[in-house]
Amino acid sequence: MQREIKYLNKIKSPDDIKNMSVAQLEELAEEIRYILLNTVSKNGGHLASNLGVVEITIALHKVFGAVNDKIVWDVGHQSYTHKLLTGRYNKFDTIRKENGISGFPKRDESEYDAFNTGHSSTSVSSALGIATAKKLTNDAGYTIAVIGDGALTGGLAYEGLNNAGRFKGNFIVILNDNKMSISKNVGSMSRYLKALRIKPSYINTKTKVERALSHIPLLNKPLLKFVRWIKDSVRKIVMDNKTIFENLGYTYYGVYDGHNIGNLISVLSGAKNVNKPVLIHLSTIKGKGYEYAEKSPKDYHGVSPFDIDKGNPDNLDNECFSKVFGDVLTDIAENDNKICAITAAMSIGTGLSNFSEKFPDRFFDVGIAEEHAVTFACGLATEGIIPIFAVYSSFLQRSYDQIVHDASAQNLHIVLCIDRAGIVGEDGETHQGVFDSAFLNNIPNVKIYSPSYYSELSEFLHNAIYRDKNVSAVRYPRGREGYKPDNYKNTNNNFDLYKSDSKSNILIVTYGRIFSNACLAKEKLYGINIGIDILKLNCIKPIDREAVLAALEYDKIYFFEEGIKNGGIAEHFNAMLTEQSYKGYYFIQAIDDKFIQQGTVTSILNKLQLDDMGMFNIIKGDIENGREKKA
Amino acid sequence: MQREIKYLNKIKSPDDIKNMSVAQLEELAEEIRYILLNTVSKNGGHLASNLGVVEITIALHKVFGAVNDKIVWDVGHQSYTHKLLTGRYNKFDTIRKENGISGFPKRDESEYDAFNTGHSSTSVSSALGIATAKKLTNDAGYTIAVIGDGALTGGLAYEGLNNAGRFKGNFIVILNDNKMSISKNVGSMSRYLKALRIKPSYINTKTKVERALSHIPLLNKPLLKFVRWIKDSVRKIVMDNKTIFENLGYTYYGVYDGHNIGNLISVLSGAKNVNKPVLIHLSTIKGKGYEYAEKSPKDYHGVSPFDIDKGNPDNLDNECFSKVFGDVLTDIAENDNKICAITAAMSIGTGLSNFSEKFPDRFFDVGIAEEHAVTFACGLATEGIIPIFAVYSSFLQRSYDQIVHDASAQNLHIVLCIDRAGIVGEDGETHQGVFDSAFLNNIPNVKIYSPSYYSELSEFLHNAIYRDKNVSAVRYPRGREGYKPDNYKNTNNNFDLYKSDSKSNILIVTYGRIFSNACLAKEKLYGINIGIDILKLNCIKPIDREAVLAALEYDKIYFFEEGIKNGGIAEHFNAMLTEQSYKGYYFIQAIDDKFIQQGTVTSILNKLQLDDMGMFNIIKGDIENGREKKA
Repeated sequence: MQREIKYLNKIKSPDDIKNMSVAQLEELAEEIRYILLNTVSKNGGHLASNLGVVEITIALHKVFGAVNDKIVWDVGHQSYTHKLLTGRYNKFDTIRKENGISGFPKRDESEYDAFNTGHSSTSVSSALGIATAKKLTNDAGYTIAVIGDGALTGGLAYEGLNNAGRFKGNFIVILNDNKMSISKNVGSMSRYLKALRIKPSYINTKTKVERALSHIPLLNKPLLKFVRWIKDSVRKIVMDNKTIFENLGYTYYGVYDGHNIGNLISVLSGAKNVNKPVLIHLSTIKGKGYEYAEKSPKDYHGVSPFDIDKGNPDNLDNECFSKVFGDVLTDIAENDNKICAITAAMSIGTGLSNFSEKFPDRFFDVGIAEEHAVTFACGLATEGIIPIFAVYSSFLQRSYDQIVHDASAQNLHIVLCIDRAGIVGEDGETHQGVFDSAFLNNIPNVKIYSPSYYSELSEFLHNAIYRDKNVSAVRYPRGREGYKPDNYKNTNNNFDLYKSDSKSNILIVTYGRIFSNACLAKEKLYGINIGIDILKLNCIKPIDREAVLAALEYDKIYFFEEGIKNGGIAEHFNAMLTEQSYKGYYFIQAIDDKFIQQGTVTSILNKLQLDDMGMFNIIKGDIENGREKKA
Repeated sequence: MQREIKYLNKIKSPDDIKNMSVAQLEELAEEIRYILLNTVSKNGGHLASNLGVVEITIALHKVFGAVNDKIVWDVGHQSYTHKLLTGRYNKFDTIRKENGISGFPKRDESEYDAFNTGHSSTSVSSALGIATAKKLTNDAGYTIAVIGDGALTGGLAYEGLNNAGRFKGNFIVILNDNKMSISKNVGSMSRYLKALRIKPSYINTKTKVERALSHIPLLNKPLLKFVRWIKDSVRKIVMDNKTIFENLGYTYYGVYDGHNIGNLISVLSGAKNVNKPVLIHLSTIKGKGYEYAEKSPKDYHGVSPFDIDKGNPDNLDNECFSKVFGDVLTDIAENDNKICAITAAMSIGTGLSNFSEKFPDRFFDVGIAEEHAVTFACGLATEGIIPIFAVYSSFLQRSYDQIVHDASAQNLHIVLCIDRAGIVGEDGETHQGVFDSAFLNNIPNVKIYSPSYYSELSEFLHNAIYRDKNVSAVRYPRGREGYKPDNYKNTNNNFDLYKSDSKSNILIVTYGRIFSNACLAKEKLYGINIGIDILKLNCIKPIDREAVLAALEYDKIYFFEEGIKNGGIAEHFNAMLTEQSYKGYYFIQAIDDKFIQQGTVTSILNKLQLDDMGMFNIIKGDIENGREKKA
């Protein structure tokens, strides 16, 4: 259904909404929903969270004066309306595309984006930094953090709230309470927020009672004394009766309807005048305005392109590494009640939905709390349970210290199942899983498997659970398995050497999904009469000494790594070759000290020369140029 | 003053205190304090925190049945009494010594140590894991987390509390509220705890009012209606009037005196019978029983050996890297009001005391919240402030994701001043600063300086603040600068090459404090007619290409690194040499995929062959054996 756009196309900056009436703003909200739905259903992206904050965003830009007032969007996947109102309407159809606008706030993209986000729970901390800087520099601008109840399960959010609670000056936290993380929100804070929501009269009652107490009629003397005692005691209690947020130093406004623009404008205007931290608790509907998303917001959190009328986002590929992981783990758990699964608010994405339904007692969604997930797993492990923490690579960065300090240093047997390892794609640099190989590589006692195919994922997961004794990690990419050559064998060795028909002096070393690309490159090179062998590392830490000895036989070694180069596996392999006095040519193709912007996985791997053509061209080029060293 | 030990020497396990009377336990407490004071004043260690939990520990072991009941000590620096009561009295004088017992709980050391600690805020998470495992395996044992109010500033503690608040079964958290982190505790939670402490009558009033309301006399009709309304409203409010902990799902007991053994036994026994999470809020005095420590607990948190009668722990060496850092930063801040300093509860240890007094508005102690510290710094940086986060290397592990995601990915200019980089010593594996080079090495855009001397620390800090544009780190060791050869020059180059008098074909590459050891080794080698050159890296990321080109000239290169080998600087240097087709001999001496136990810095460096003798022996041995490759 086509809709005529009357307002949105005329908004070049938030200034253009300052003079609009509430009725007009409400119409604007509908236009925005129309654009959100139409764009996201085409490009994919975050839908339900964005539909939920349309009115909040409009009210914020009506009441506050960005650029100088700073709005920090926690996680940032709900910043689409903000982008539409800050001069990016015309580019909005490029969202999440290569060279297009980002699905998250980006300071490089717009001066209205105050702070880059992507990972959860950072907003209060960064906003407090901004507000503090403004205070130090006598800048009168306001600072507002917008954080969801899901993000409030992350410890960093609490660290921020604990520090901001004593800020001397205006500081506004908007709690966008949609009762959801990606799935249903968890934890006792979430239960508490629910309690606040179902008693919206609480603040009113408090005020009314205070007033009544001051008007209590005078009575005969003994009764008077009694009533006075009650009065005093009650007043004390009433004064003490505070929400968690008040106890933490915030003036608490709530719970208000997060979809009532008129009201929101009043509340935000009021908050401007408080000379201390304020927390505004807003109740919103995730997916608001799109029936399918309202009904099942978790299915419309992050979506692939879908049909608006039918509402069928095909989010979990029927066939993908995540699903294989979930299926295999569920099978294992069927026969072993020591198996527990942990997720940090990612049960669907990591393929654990089925497990969670089958074994609710052994499934733990801990909220967006990756630190806790690992330390909790360690506690389980001390008592003989085998905990499996399924987590996206980029979010596991949050657990680095816990893996070092709680797991590895005391040699506990926990299993990390690292999904979205390698290039992830359209979510951009904050979501690429390109650091896990390197940061796990430097932690003692950690074992890391990198399957290329589903069958290997299954095999390595079994190893990790039943063969290994310490921290054991299995890392696998987003999506499906790739090309599998005819001579491929699932050996469950630490490494496999795929030789050419005739003797070759060139070796590719690689691991994970891009083994497929190496195989394709090998076939292409064979087509121009260049024979190469491939060393496939299955276990990338520790690296089997025999693998290094096998590599010594080659004059030229190319290591292709879908991960950061500094400190990665290719450099460690280099060091092991050097220890063996390898004197041949060694070349590393990996991600060289940079972040990877958004794009399709295919396009990014191509640019990084980690696809079959890249590998083919590098090796062919070297041979043609007689090159033995990097320029 | 000598004290006769009557009880403590007879306690082989906690069973031996089960039948002791409260009066006897009180005497035991005094014996324990006597031993604590005498041992720590000799060995150094954590004093004030241990003096504060003597009674709590006794009561815990009286009421609960460790081994099967599990007591998890947060941070663990307060576990000395626990060690004394669990069979380690005879070894207690070896505490923190090489091959002695640890200053922290260690599962390898005793079955009574339920979970290893060292870093803060892990206890609730790990204890929840333990309690959950017990529930899954039908083990009736209790699980108790003992956490200080300081540790409660860490987000991980909140993540744990948020998850444990919905635990179905007994789960006990003891909040040891001594109003202190290492220095005075910070944040709004701390202020709230204070509010609870100064109104201990709060719970009582609530009960009394509830009771009074149910007995309110009947009056004439209109008044009756009014009073009824008040009654109902007030009851609602009274029922709602909960502490933060109650709101988060805990039964709250408190505030009780943490030094009254009799009372503690009653409270703990009561908590055993609650079939849900319980939080017991205890008020304790940090340093209890030792006058000097009670007066100034922060000076007696972690101490070097000192005189008991005079009470003069010489904690902050008059001359050390930390002090130089603090002095230089204070000087810079004097002339530049854009400079802010941030610490995570380590103002004294990092040398920032003076800064904090001089520039209170620009000094931020954020609590034990390293994640927040970095993200907060990033917020400051977006507004043109130059934030300097001073932090111990091992604690910076907590900030890995924030450095990647908040700082580096958006190219913000923050300065990390990394104290205790390298071997730290007696605190053992959880405190060694041996991962920072490796984990920062893999983060794009990060610059890392590694000064060997005070003057370099000063110079590099200036670079980091005024020359660099992105994340810039300066890392320096605990303690004093080492040997400085006559030909040393502070050049502020990225690297310096120290050549022998005559041409040498052997090169040592190194950085940081052990440059001193390399210089001594060089002199020793000269004594047996072996001439070597030394390449001193000042900036270890990025490594200057010219440094690599200079190294190419040598037949043999030895890289000595006081840090983890996998993913470290030596491996990266290796990769850079390989890129330049270096065909000579390259040898890395670093920490090879293991944790480093407690001991003196000197002894540990000796064992790691990173001292002058180690370097001397390695090079001499190779030459004598004509060795060109590692075995």
